[in-house]
Amino acid sequence: MNEFAWFASRCGVSLLLGGLLAGPMTMGAPNESVLMPAPATLKMGSGRLAVTAGFSVAFAAAPDARLMGALRRTLRAMEERSGLTFARTAVGEYTPAADAGSGQLVIECAAPGEVIPQLGENESYLLEISPTRALLRAPTARGVLHGLATLQQLIQSDASGWFLPVVTITDEPRFPWRGLMIDVCRHWQPMDVIKRNLDGMALVKLNVLHLHLTEDQGFRIESKTFPKLHELGSDGHYFTQNEMRELITYAAARGIRVVPEFDMPGHATSWLVGRPELGSAPGPYAIERKWGIFNPVLDPTNEEVYRVLDGFLGEMAALFPDPYLHIGGDENNGKHWSANAHIQQFIKEHNLKDNAGLHAYFNQRVNAILLKHGKKLVGWDEILHPDLPAGSVVHSWRGPEGIAAATKQGFQVLLSNGYYIDLNHPAAKHYLNDPAPATAALTAAQRALVLGGEATMWAEWVTPELIDSRIWPRTAAIAERLWSPENVRDVPDMYRRLAVVSRRLEEAGLYHERYIDPALRRLAGDGATVNDLRALRAFVDLLEPVKDYKRGGQQPGATQFTPLDGLVDCARPDSAPSREFASTIDQFLATPRSAPAARRVETMLSDWRDTAQYLLDRLPALSPRLAEAQPLLQALADASSYGTIATAALRDGRELSTEEQRKVADAFKGAAVPHGAAELPVSKTLPRLIGASLAP
Amino acid sequence: MNEFAWFASRCGVSLLLGGLLAGPMTMGAPNESVLMPAPATLKMGSGRLAVTAGFSVAFAAAPDARLMGALRRTLRAMEERSGLTFARTAVGEYTPAADAGSGQLVIECAAPGEVIPQLGENESYLLEISPTRALLRAPTARGVLHGLATLQQLIQSDASGWFLPVVTITDEPRFPWRGLMIDVCRHWQPMDVIKRNLDGMALVKLNVLHLHLTEDQGFRIESKTFPKLHELGSDGHYFTQNEMRELITYAAARGIRVVPEFDMPGHATSWLVGRPELGSAPGPYAIERKWGIFNPVLDPTNEEVYRVLDGFLGEMAALFPDPYLHIGGDENNGKHWSANAHIQQFIKEHNLKDNAGLHAYFNQRVNAILLKHGKKLVGWDEILHPDLPAGSVVHSWRGPEGIAAATKQGFQVLLSNGYYIDLNHPAAKHYLNDPAPATAALTAAQRALVLGGEATMWAEWVTPELIDSRIWPRTAAIAERLWSPENVRDVPDMYRRLAVVSRRLEEAGLYHERYIDPALRRLAGDGATVNDLRALRAFVDLLEPVKDYKRGGQQPGATQFTPLDGLVDCARPDSAPSREFASTIDQFLATPRSAPAARRVETMLSDWRDTAQYLLDRLPALSPRLAEAQPLLQALADASSYGTIATAALRDGRELSTEEQRKVADAFKGAAVPHGAAELPVSKTLPRLIGASLAP
Repeated sequence: MNEFAWFASRCGVSLLLGGLLAGPMTMGAPNESVLMPAPATLKMGSGRLAVTAGFSVAFAAAPDARLMGALRRTLRAMEERSGLTFARTAVGEYTPAADAGSGQLVIECAAPGEVIPQLGENESYLLEISPTRALLRAPTARGVLHGLATLQQLIQSDASGWFLPVVTITDEPRFPWRGLMIDVCRHWQPMDVIKRNLDGMALVKLNVLHLHLTEDQGFRIESKTFPKLHELGSDGHYFTQNEMRELITYAAARGIRVVPEFDMPGHATSWLVGRPELGSAPGPYAIERKWGIFNPVLDPTNEEVYRVLDGFLGEMAALFPDPYLHIGGDENNGKHWSANAHIQQFIKEHNLKDNAGLHAYFNQRVNAILLKHGKKLVGWDEILHPDLPAGSVVHSWRGPEGIAAATKQGFQVLLSNGYYIDLNHPAAKHYLNDPAPATAALTAAQRALVLGGEATMWAEWVTPELIDSRIWPRTAAIAERLWSPENVRDVPDMYRRLAVVSRRLEEAGLYHERYIDPALRRLAGDGATVNDLRALRAFVDLLEPVKDYKRGGQQPGATQFTPLDGLVDCARPDSAPSREFASTIDQFLATPRSAPAARRVETMLSDWRDTAQYLLDRLPALSPRLAEAQPLLQALADASSYGTIATAALRDGRELSTEEQRKVADAFKGAAVPHGAAELPVSKTLPRLIGASLAP
Repeated sequence: MNEFAWFASRCGVSLLLGGLLAGPMTMGAPNESVLMPAPATLKMGSGRLAVTAGFSVAFAAAPDARLMGALRRTLRAMEERSGLTFARTAVGEYTPAADAGSGQLVIECAAPGEVIPQLGENESYLLEISPTRALLRAPTARGVLHGLATLQQLIQSDASGWFLPVVTITDEPRFPWRGLMIDVCRHWQPMDVIKRNLDGMALVKLNVLHLHLTEDQGFRIESKTFPKLHELGSDGHYFTQNEMRELITYAAARGIRVVPEFDMPGHATSWLVGRPELGSAPGPYAIERKWGIFNPVLDPTNEEVYRVLDGFLGEMAALFPDPYLHIGGDENNGKHWSANAHIQQFIKEHNLKDNAGLHAYFNQRVNAILLKHGKKLVGWDEILHPDLPAGSVVHSWRGPEGIAAATKQGFQVLLSNGYYIDLNHPAAKHYLNDPAPATAALTAAQRALVLGGEATMWAEWVTPELIDSRIWPRTAAIAERLWSPENVRDVPDMYRRLAVVSRRLEEAGLYHERYIDPALRRLAGDGATVNDLRALRAFVDLLEPVKDYKRGGQQPGATQFTPLDGLVDCARPDSAPSREFASTIDQFLATPRSAPAARRVETMLSDWRDTAQYLLDRLPALSPRLAEAQPLLQALADASSYGTIATAALRDGRELSTEEQRKVADAFKGAAVPHGAAELPVSKTLPRLIGASLAP
């Protein structure tokens, strides 16, 4: 019996939902649902439940503090969107309905569930909205929390006012581990960044915050046992244990587990600043300020290392209630091990074969420490080795082969390959990346070992101001992949709903949209006019940061101290107008000589040309910081001019001359060259205007 | 010898500056200085000191932690504006210049000054920028902090790069108490709001944060002695003592004193929720959720009140290092005293005459408690009474008569009348409001008692999201009034510089501009297009919230829980385009029949008409929340249409017909009617188009 069937039978809703449970996903027409992630099943009805100032809530049984807190947040979000004020009691609580019969929302929670959320807990819920009331029923508070997040996304308005649509939703997640990893090391991310991202996670039903807490560039957690670690390894930027407890409580209130990562034995420079004797080379060490893979690494042959790890991990095991603890284990280049005669001698004496064998030995020692402190080990792909202790979880940053290899050996796995949101790929790419697609050559037993996945926000290029724009809204698409049925993979519909959930995320306090205009004002300088700023905004909306690891090549001198408020930092991954252009070109090429589609293409191109030319003329009056925009603006002006010629030729069925073809191709090629680590994604679409062959 | 003369003689700069000290303010042409507040003296030179990545700083003597912190913040702000990265040491500090001779900035601080800033400390500094180096010299760290704030405002760019202009500034404040009061009670304002506002204060050289910590609507400070006060009086929204220490430290690092206010005996409902026995009526009490003057008041005849105050104020005296402690004392309506026979009997028995006498008795008792704990009493106007203890400071919310009366009796005074920034008046009004104008009938002795003033941010209508927009940038104009020489009062030049400092405040992290677009997106709803949002932005930029206490009349049902994210909350005081319209009308009327000025007027009017008409057409597709915009949009459309007619008639020297005059006047009158607590300030300018008589 699966979780939902259990819930349905327990709650006596099996009759009601029988048809839905077995049937296909019943998402209506695209404009009928705005939910993200899409529920397991959804059946739109007709009519609406009006939401007015008289809206009130009844609980079938007295709610615990977590439910009350979640209800308060949901009702406040509904008030803030609608401008309504619901009734309050004298002590400031929302006035409960007089009885279950009179509430507009009735909440039935069978059991509270774990106060600290646990992997595998039942997260299902039923939300049934009729014209007279909304019923939210779940076996645990976790399910109610998800149902409230759904409700918060469902409230909408038209000229007649605010309402909830009549709908029946039965919902449960496909994977139990749906995470967001935030690297708080390369660039420090303080409490408020984490809190607002937890709010965003709750809205899209993510349930694991993985905090990457130690790195070459920073040791970001207070250790009371070994205070030199954070004191000398962090520039003073770290979470105190009290702060971490506050975050864990904040996350738990939202049904989110917090899994800490302490990367070892590599990525460990910051450990060695205060404790150089733990390293494999003599030191001294300084906090790393650049990006890349560095040599400093813990010395697995040094018993003091295990004594410190025992103390430190014991301390962390007590601080973090989750049974899983991530030890990283990635990208240890082994150079300091190879260069250390004592270490090589140790490998020989212990028949460890090579550095990989030494790494496996280290993992076993660390695993013994974790076991002693009641924790299960999670590590990146590289920990997979014949000697990896049973019960460990392999976190795959390398890909499907990693999943296959680890599950074949019986390890549970998490997927992050394909979810590297720091690499600036479009949402669609992440969205279609499935941890265990039906097409994968995995046995049923292997499939059962796939726990889910995590979006990973590595922090080379993000400040507290702009990190949200690298996480959101794309991570909502990943959240859907991890929550919704596998067959929910309509990309245009995903983008339609992503635009809506992006607004909800903004309302929840995220900065992904709101940081841009202030950043542009700063970038453009005091000489910029309102028109300049509008044109700049239109321009950066056409830009994307370069993808994968290209930025390091474009800005090789960058360090932890480089201000990240230039042109590329105002550009965001997954440019919406560039996507719109691509689909307009689709329409144009699919309906050759269609005058309306041609006009749309031409309008876009001429807008870009005008914007680019306007800004090129204005550059001398703007901040010298915009000098780096010049080549991109020129390329955009040229490409859109020649794009207009190519479009007209296609529309008119006229063949371009060889000379014209050359010029057009050159202009399009020019638009494909990144500058200042930014690029024009329309340069991928434009060549279709010359590559396309028109049907007669 | 005044402070500056002392500093000048001590620093050996008297020769250099002799001419400047005696002369008038030497502000150059309007575009030569962007500083706010304007320095005491400023002499522009020619040339510039280039700021490049090689910029480095030398200290004449080893700096203390406060100076190093301030320098770090200033250099980081310079990096973030310029995109430059200055050199760092291995431990991440800015690399100091090899020697004093090789630094681009040389800092000479004669003495560190008090770690906790004190009233009356020397705050002067000299900033002398030549083409080869900048010298910042001050007798105390307070002066250096101000000099760094000046430097942060001075850095600018043109096509050739970043630079500091060659200039000599000798600067000191006119008044020693330059404050911002924030009411954190009516709407709770958490740590980050206070911190970013402290950053803003430091940028414009304000030096007192006055925190209004207790009110009918909330008791916002932890009391360890009487925990029921904050536990039952705050809905859980209060500063812990640790948090308050953090704020005090944060403020002190920026040269800002923190003066707490505990309002008593009135405005005390929240005290009585947990301690009803201290009230003058039997209770029980609940936290007040509405706005106004309420009856609950401490009982001055109850010895338990003084026992609690002794304990509580003793605790606060230890928490807050500043020698001044504000006890409010305002707006006690006396109703519960009058209704209490025991209290009236007490008045008779003690020959206190009336409720005012009882209030004075209470103040004397409280003053004795404060004296015991080493604090000086500050209170609002109403504390002034023949029996007010000597040494108290009177804080005038009522006006110049308050200043005159209090100083006549020998009390030191602060002015807040005219600085009530919550009342939505334009910056110019506050700017021209002088605490001790040359024209005031005050003796020299009375003038010496005027310590300065405070902008007061009462919190009926502000959330953490929008409070900055009610404080800034207008408070920068008040900061200039309190810092700069009295004769600095050129309103257009103030507005020119205010626009610049507003950008600097935004860069310092303030939300006054950046909250608007997200708020408009939420308000307009998911159906809004980019064009809708642009039109809405243009529209709300023409709106202002109604002034004085009119909003309570417009929204009589509002409580502490009413969402403040409607149309009026997106409008800001002191609409810039409305000001621009007024000055365009000035030009037009000053040069009758001037075609260019007429065109400018007509362009503005037709833009408004088009915007209003566009939005009127779009309203059905937008959120029902915008329904309240309809009457204002219609009024704007009508008034701008008829304004065009009136302008054309003036331009052409044509007399309007009686019928036309009536219609125009009606349209203009219609635009003067507020709706949804918002109004169109152009309605004050428009009538000039019919009232004006043209010269032949």
